[in-house]
Amino acid sequence: MNDATHDPELRSWVKTANAPQADFPIQNLPFGVFRRAAGEGGRAGVAIGDRVLDLHRASELGLLGSDQALLSACRAPRLNELMALGPSAWSALRRRLSQLLRGDAPGEPRTAEALVAMADVELLLPAQIGDYTDFYCSLHHAINVGSIFRPDNPLMPNYKHLPVGYHGRASSLVVSGTPVRRPSGQTRSGDAPPSFGPSRSLDYELELGFFVGPGNRLGTTIPLARAAEHIFGYCLVNDWSARDVQRWEYQPLGPFLGKSFATTVSPWVVTGAALEPFRVPAWERAAGDPPPLPYLDHDADRQRGGVDLNLEVYLSTAAMRAAGQAAVRLSRSNARQLYWTPAQMLAHHASNGCNLRPGDLIASGTVSGPEKGSRGCLLELTGRGSEPLELPGGERRTFLEDGDEVILRGYCAGPGCARIGFGECRGVVLPARAD
Amino acid sequence: MNDATHDPELRSWVKTANAPQADFPIQNLPFGVFRRAAGEGGRAGVAIGDRVLDLHRASELGLLGSDQALLSACRAPRLNELMALGPSAWSALRRRLSQLLRGDAPGEPRTAEALVAMADVELLLPAQIGDYTDFYCSLHHAINVGSIFRPDNPLMPNYKHLPVGYHGRASSLVVSGTPVRRPSGQTRSGDAPPSFGPSRSLDYELELGFFVGPGNRLGTTIPLARAAEHIFGYCLVNDWSARDVQRWEYQPLGPFLGKSFATTVSPWVVTGAALEPFRVPAWERAAGDPPPLPYLDHDADRQRGGVDLNLEVYLSTAAMRAAGQAAVRLSRSNARQLYWTPAQMLAHHASNGCNLRPGDLIASGTVSGPEKGSRGCLLELTGRGSEPLELPGGERRTFLEDGDEVILRGYCAGPGCARIGFGECRGVVLPARAD
Repeated sequence: MNDATHDPELRSWVKTANAPQADFPIQNLPFGVFRRAAGEGGRAGVAIGDRVLDLHRASELGLLGSDQALLSACRAPRLNELMALGPSAWSALRRRLSQLLRGDAPGEPRTAEALVAMADVELLLPAQIGDYTDFYCSLHHAINVGSIFRPDNPLMPNYKHLPVGYHGRASSLVVSGTPVRRPSGQTRSGDAPPSFGPSRSLDYELELGFFVGPGNRLGTTIPLARAAEHIFGYCLVNDWSARDVQRWEYQPLGPFLGKSFATTVSPWVVTGAALEPFRVPAWERAAGDPPPLPYLDHDADRQRGGVDLNLEVYLSTAAMRAAGQAAVRLSRSNARQLYWTPAQMLAHHASNGCNLRPGDLIASGTVSGPEKGSRGCLLELTGRGSEPLELPGGERRTFLEDGDEVILRGYCAGPGCARIGFGECRGVVLPARAD
Repeated sequence: MNDATHDPELRSWVKTANAPQADFPIQNLPFGVFRRAAGEGGRAGVAIGDRVLDLHRASELGLLGSDQALLSACRAPRLNELMALGPSAWSALRRRLSQLLRGDAPGEPRTAEALVAMADVELLLPAQIGDYTDFYCSLHHAINVGSIFRPDNPLMPNYKHLPVGYHGRASSLVVSGTPVRRPSGQTRSGDAPPSFGPSRSLDYELELGFFVGPGNRLGTTIPLARAAEHIFGYCLVNDWSARDVQRWEYQPLGPFLGKSFATTVSPWVVTGAALEPFRVPAWERAAGDPPPLPYLDHDADRQRGGVDLNLEVYLSTAAMRAAGQAAVRLSRSNARQLYWTPAQMLAHHASNGCNLRPGDLIASGTVSGPEKGSRGCLLELTGRGSEPLELPGGERRTFLEDGDEVILRGYCAGPGCARIGFGECRGVVLPARAD
């Protein structure tokens, strides 16, 4: 279903959108929410080059047509209303935005009235997120982490039969750029009595997130064949984790305070439409792996349920910044390595009748590949601290230190396609509070 | 801090509030949200006998004083704003309501203008619940269930060191009276391949819930000494559970689809103030149990952190209703049997800097006592189905069948105290959907 909005030759009159390494060319058009000053309400916007198209303003200027539901959604302070409208409204808006911003568009000066510089605005969480769910869909991550926490039993018997997931904490979701306070918590080393204090094993997790579109009513399901219609778009998620807290608390009910102190979300939501050229088959199961049950199996998902999306983690320490050094890349993986597709996660999530609401956030779990350089968290990269990373300036890291900034990046690129960037998902670690 | 509002001699001019077994005498004054007709917005109300005092109307009639923040909260469509105001506003409103409704109150006819019959209104969820957290704080439940799922390792080593909890699903919280659809899900019996279909082990869980008051900002904590100021009030929670789904999915990340299809909440929130006369010491730890770490230990909590609250489960099957039989009591336990107090749950929850927001719901986990008749779910009562319950009409139950209605009740009672009732938390099981 590629259309003119994907044409790699298309250029925008917003010149910065046409740079070869731009995250936000006219083929992307990701949605976000911004404000121009503290205290103002949020406004929906679309990223184009280094600008943001203010959808509220564009609607006032009469640039977005006359569909009342769509105009109302474009004037809302969060994207939930737009997410609720569903694929035909999303497509209509995407086509319209592409027409407005392409190089040969008439009426450019009027559209320019609705542009603001990205550098001049504050980006907010794209949606009011009712529920946040975190999956565990990278087989390599599950095996690597499982080997650390349960050496005799790394992969649970259910892993290849269903996408394992858990409910995360919605209140502590923050947008990229928000500093993250090192949490304190209860931990235990060996047979010593447990103690309470700042986490000594603070970690990041590199994840792919996606926002629910229309969703389903309680007691109904979303068949896998329809799942894509319920995914509005994708983002990057850093699921910060205090490994020492997690290790002591997590049995038998799963992660809790080891995760709930903060989860960082990138501000730009890359739509399913923008990713169409990068669809790839779902992960090919190894010989001997069980086939998915029928509710998790569908031709279209098997053939195009994956996405060829490069995911990267960069680290910038306080010392590196003081020395003027650029952030260093710690790892690189790809969302196509997920054992379960986003559509499978969504269909499974709703398979018991659980209602998914517009704006709910679902994340993949840490995306790791088979090689060491593709491990998406420090727990895996350093073998739980036993093999410290050597940083270019001579520093070493087992887990994160105060002042460390973690930067996730993501992008799709390939021959004959415009590059589709996700922008960044950043957060700097603040020292634990003294109390 | 008992005051005139607790005086057991106090009577209301609303006569039904004075019946000996009334759940809602003038000493209770629980808050809820109702509407008079479908499609209307919610209105805050207070239960008194078989009536509801409409707080919006009462404020319009000038009955609630002139505090603008309080008046605004009383006119809001959910209780979140009232919950955010904190204890001094809650106390002021409670005193005012007690004055308005007591037998010798002047201005009774004007107050009567703000009363509606409870039978004429629909009760809604009391708050917009941002996050729902479920703990696991009954030692007897943990041992009973642990013995079933992990016979060799029933109680995890962390259990007596911290209140174990997990994030629940907020979207599928429903108010008492909402029918609950039997979920389908993936299950596995023994070594047979997993299959997908309606749960065959549908269960209830008898829990105490509480709503967060002002809460804390992200990155800050709530010390145990201040925790009570952040608990607005208490309710009953039925954490419906599909045991077969839960058993197969829950490792290593905890309960997910086995729980997220529905959680039922009672409509009336009994305030901390109303429960003051029933405060009891926290659970007395057995000799040899570890003392709580300092952040989970405080004199006032140790002395008065428990609550002497009777909790009951009743079952009414379709056949019983057809035969005109009353619901039968399956079990009875008491919230004083919780190993961790609500204040400890709250302080632990915020100890990593996780922000709790007004209206967040926290539940205790199944409340079971030491005797068989005090086990708060069928999994425990029937030994995972191996000892079916015999019902009075001759029916037997291992787990819930379609048409079964589960009714939770709770009340505090004691010499020299007015009875404080929680009302009911009900739900009837609908058959699984055919798709």
